[in-house]
Amino acid sequence: MASVFVNRLQFLPHEDFDRYPRTLERDCELLASAGCDIVFAPSEAELYPHPQTFKLVPDPELADILEGEFRPGFFTGVCTVVMKLMSCVQPRVAVFGKKDYQQLMIVRAMTEQFALPCDIIAAETVRDADGLALSSRNRYLSAAELREAPRLYRVLNDVKSKVEQGERNFEAIEFDADAELARHGWRVDYVVVRRRETLTAPERGDRELVALGAAKLGNTRLIDNLEITAPR
Amino acid sequence: MASVFVNRLQFLPHEDFDRYPRTLERDCELLASAGCDIVFAPSEAELYPHPQTFKLVPDPELADILEGEFRPGFFTGVCTVVMKLMSCVQPRVAVFGKKDYQQLMIVRAMTEQFALPCDIIAAETVRDADGLALSSRNRYLSAAELREAPRLYRVLNDVKSKVEQGERNFEAIEFDADAELARHGWRVDYVVVRRRETLTAPERGDRELVALGAAKLGNTRLIDNLEITAPR
Repeated sequence: MASVFVNRLQFLPHEDFDRYPRTLERDCELLASAGCDIVFAPSEAELYPHPQTFKLVPDPELADILEGEFRPGFFTGVCTVVMKLMSCVQPRVAVFGKKDYQQLMIVRAMTEQFALPCDIIAAETVRDADGLALSSRNRYLSAAELREAPRLYRVLNDVKSKVEQGERNFEAIEFDADAELARHGWRVDYVVVRRRETLTAPERGDRELVALGAAKLGNTRLIDNLEITAPR
Repeated sequence: MASVFVNRLQFLPHEDFDRYPRTLERDCELLASAGCDIVFAPSEAELYPHPQTFKLVPDPELADILEGEFRPGFFTGVCTVVMKLMSCVQPRVAVFGKKDYQQLMIVRAMTEQFALPCDIIAAETVRDADGLALSSRNRYLSAAELREAPRLYRVLNDVKSKVEQGERNFEAIEFDADAELARHGWRVDYVVVRRRETLTAPERGDRELVALGAAKLGNTRLIDNLEITAPR
């Protein structure tokens, strides 16, 4: 079976095309060495021969919170281009990283709601030895920022530990996490504990949770998350 | 090759389900006699196991005019369910009637914009001997209304004749058509001449046009249209 790799560039909403690091050549080398048969990487002009005026608008309850609050319309762009790429490639499975957790939940919900014949597979986040989630954005961090950056992971890990130890005062946990990051110079967009699928606030008895964080270090906005299974 | 017929009921936006005449049994007989192999007619519960909160929102310039103006959100419902049915059936071709001309243009544009691997085929409108376009709604007309109903076709035919004879004062043509219907008791939503694909007002030199009308006769709202090729 042929594996098709869709260059991540194409998953971006239109307006982000220019700001994104382009590493297609290097990506292709890595893919070849990993046994990938085909790379599908249409140019912007090929993917958008005409302005994209039809949109796939996701559920606002899932898409206008968290990343969607700080990047209005972002997930409409994601859903629109993912739906279009699904049409182009007609994949049987598609892999999305857990690093963009909200995106993964939204793409999964879209796939279900539109009865797409495709399984969405979640890929675990890959991390440096110090815990920093790998991201193309890390290249924008200074040496000092790179040393500071793993704190986002450590703070989320603290949140995870507390919840796993049975603490359920999520507001207090979130407040402490936020303060810890702010104390070290981060500008925090959010650190929250949510239910996994709906990303709504946990209710009594919910055990399948996720801690999500987004914060700016200098000019670079980093996001990360950790799944948590709360004790009974 | 198997032909799949999707019951028209399923093309309706959610909220119209209850008002629509249901003739599945009779439809299936007619389809069988026409050589159809498979009918795909999911129940509402099968098609919408969960509330449909992700939407396919068409280009407002194409979808918020004409029918979209009188039925706000209508084409978002149409596009959402058509996209979902496309996923379910994975058709190589899909046939849409010209009777719902704006719907046809919108579905065609959606198919292009989302690169769906499906050709949209336009089916000619079928008419009674008196010109009345066949529609499931005709059954709601009284005997007197049924005699009056073909006037919509005749008025559109007058519009067509004038344009084919070289008249380009579309405002005057539309005004006369509107007045003729109103004089016979119709409440007119619109009678307009438009460019075919974009449904925008014709510009100098445009030849591929369509006359579209929508008006109420008693409690029944009828629509019809005629393609026009203007002279050079």
